[in-house]
Amino acid sequence: MARENKISMEHGAGGQQMQSLIGSVILKNLKKTCAGTVGLDSLDDGASITLLKENCGGFQSDKIELVMTTDSHVVKPIFFPGGDIGRVSVCGAVNDLSVMGARPLALSCGMIIPEGFDITDLEKVVCSMNAVLEEVGVPIITGDTKTVEGSALDSIMINISGIGICDAPVRDSGLSPGDKIIVSGYIADHGMALLTKREGFEFNSDLVSDVAPVWKMIEPALSVRTKDGKKAISAMKDPTRGGIADSLNEMAQKSKVGIQIEEEKIPIREAVQTSCEMLGLDPLEIANEGKVVLGVHPDYAEQVLKILKQHPYGKDAAIIGVAGTDKPGKVILVSALGSTRYVDVPTGDPIPRVC
Amino acid sequence: MARENKISMEHGAGGQQMQSLIGSVILKNLKKTCAGTVGLDSLDDGASITLLKENCGGFQSDKIELVMTTDSHVVKPIFFPGGDIGRVSVCGAVNDLSVMGARPLALSCGMIIPEGFDITDLEKVVCSMNAVLEEVGVPIITGDTKTVEGSALDSIMINISGIGICDAPVRDSGLSPGDKIIVSGYIADHGMALLTKREGFEFNSDLVSDVAPVWKMIEPALSVRTKDGKKAISAMKDPTRGGIADSLNEMAQKSKVGIQIEEEKIPIREAVQTSCEMLGLDPLEIANEGKVVLGVHPDYAEQVLKILKQHPYGKDAAIIGVAGTDKPGKVILVSALGSTRYVDVPTGDPIPRVC
Repeated sequence: MARENKISMEHGAGGQQMQSLIGSVILKNLKKTCAGTVGLDSLDDGASITLLKENCGGFQSDKIELVMTTDSHVVKPIFFPGGDIGRVSVCGAVNDLSVMGARPLALSCGMIIPEGFDITDLEKVVCSMNAVLEEVGVPIITGDTKTVEGSALDSIMINISGIGICDAPVRDSGLSPGDKIIVSGYIADHGMALLTKREGFEFNSDLVSDVAPVWKMIEPALSVRTKDGKKAISAMKDPTRGGIADSLNEMAQKSKVGIQIEEEKIPIREAVQTSCEMLGLDPLEIANEGKVVLGVHPDYAEQVLKILKQHPYGKDAAIIGVAGTDKPGKVILVSALGSTRYVDVPTGDPIPRVC
Repeated sequence: MARENKISMEHGAGGQQMQSLIGSVILKNLKKTCAGTVGLDSLDDGASITLLKENCGGFQSDKIELVMTTDSHVVKPIFFPGGDIGRVSVCGAVNDLSVMGARPLALSCGMIIPEGFDITDLEKVVCSMNAVLEEVGVPIITGDTKTVEGSALDSIMINISGIGICDAPVRDSGLSPGDKIIVSGYIADHGMALLTKREGFEFNSDLVSDVAPVWKMIEPALSVRTKDGKKAISAMKDPTRGGIADSLNEMAQKSKVGIQIEEEKIPIREAVQTSCEMLGLDPLEIANEGKVVLGVHPDYAEQVLKILKQHPYGKDAAIIGVAGTDKPGKVILVSALGSTRYVDVPTGDPIPRVC
């Protein structure tokens, strides 16, 4: 009996057992699986997305701007405080689309599962995916399931790709001197929650990951426009691997501006700060899975901040710095006492397999 | 020195080393990486696809039908006669879009690489991808690279997702009684080439995989229309895992028709036939990676066949059977001597990790 509740190689063989697994574990637990003529339940070679003039923001008769994103998730352990690989993987795609300024339209899901993997665990993962899909209102419309020998892979790995739509993408390179830098809440929770669980630390046992889909928080902020009709949000990233250190450096380099951030304004939980100090980790380099770093036109920064704060995921948002012409491509951290240091691009990963 | 040419955990850490790997191995070898405002070289959170009225077949002012597909590839060994995991993964997405009747617009690439993987091998894989992209004229516009401990994964695994565009998708469920069944060439080459290489068989050492992108072969056949303006091609699948046995059964079940195929009309190489017999394998269940199974309106079957035969990948195409009202949902194989048997849905995978 135990054997029957484990993934076997036949579950990935493209035949009857795979169909049955998809039906009983995946389709059963996903509520929204269609965005066009052909949806996930057709189990066809792909699925379709119908774009209708009346229901597509940014739809013009001569041009449509789609956004595509992809992420493969190798998070370890797959279940952790505040989430699991299912929640992380769907949030990963939703958040990448969101920070491009694109409304999520549809997702795909490619799973690689080792032989012997517990089907009850698979079902939990799929249910976690579904919770995010329902929250955001986006379907998984197509998928792929592969199985490999248990010796070939240590756990399930999930790729989610996504399609969104926008009038014009928000780019990393969009910062101008003067733009305010906002972070949407407490940093480093995801990485530290994962590390705490993985290493079995006694301290910080209450710490949970921030993994969450940011679209509903971002959507109203995207409609804030400058006098010339441009988005007030000039650049946006979700600071996952490499933390806000990596996101800010990418923005500074691509936008050819310097970024100065004030240490005391960065939202960070005391427990996270303390354990980072104990472990010799820089919280700026630790991954987040439900946070956004934004550059915003200075005249609209307070308005955008207020909008973000109205959403539960953004209630601790703060303006943490400003872009300038000094030291283009660099990020400078100013401490409470006024000393400064460069925030470097992380060279390695303090916490591997974080997403 | 040797160490430097191997993947390390830092290559997946989201920082400087990852950027450098992406630049020197991926971007350097991919020629076409953009389909809109933001392309792969922006290394942003995603990329964009611009749909313009003048360059989108099937574009109408009030409705656009996109097709999305995804496949994770776990093929073993990653290099085999006739191709490698790079070629298989890009062909997988291109072919899934093609058999949905959709012109490929853009692809994403998510790679999971074990620590210690040879960077020269990675470069070979990327070059193979590029060759297919150039042949089809489709870019990889966004990607993701994850690394894991060498003990966690036995080799590189690649997800390719794709977006295409069409007026109306060609579905598995579109077969009508009377429709002719066409296969676009010799079956079972991919699976048997892989098995031969994997097991080191002495016989069949000349066998090569058929892995190829079928879009250019399919495209002109999609324009064949019936008198009422519908596509003459009523259903289409690429018979990968589970072979044509699985594809035909899916078509029969979803279309609620019976399919009768004639054994002697199925294109199969003698070497493949012989080795299948030796190994007790059914060639109908063996994977293909550059073949298509089509259902075509009977009045247009010869015309579609002729079009397929004009392309090198379709030169051995043949009409192998017909859909009917008898035994709906079932596939029946008629031997040269007139005996019949059901072609069952494969229950397991005779050759695992084939794609």
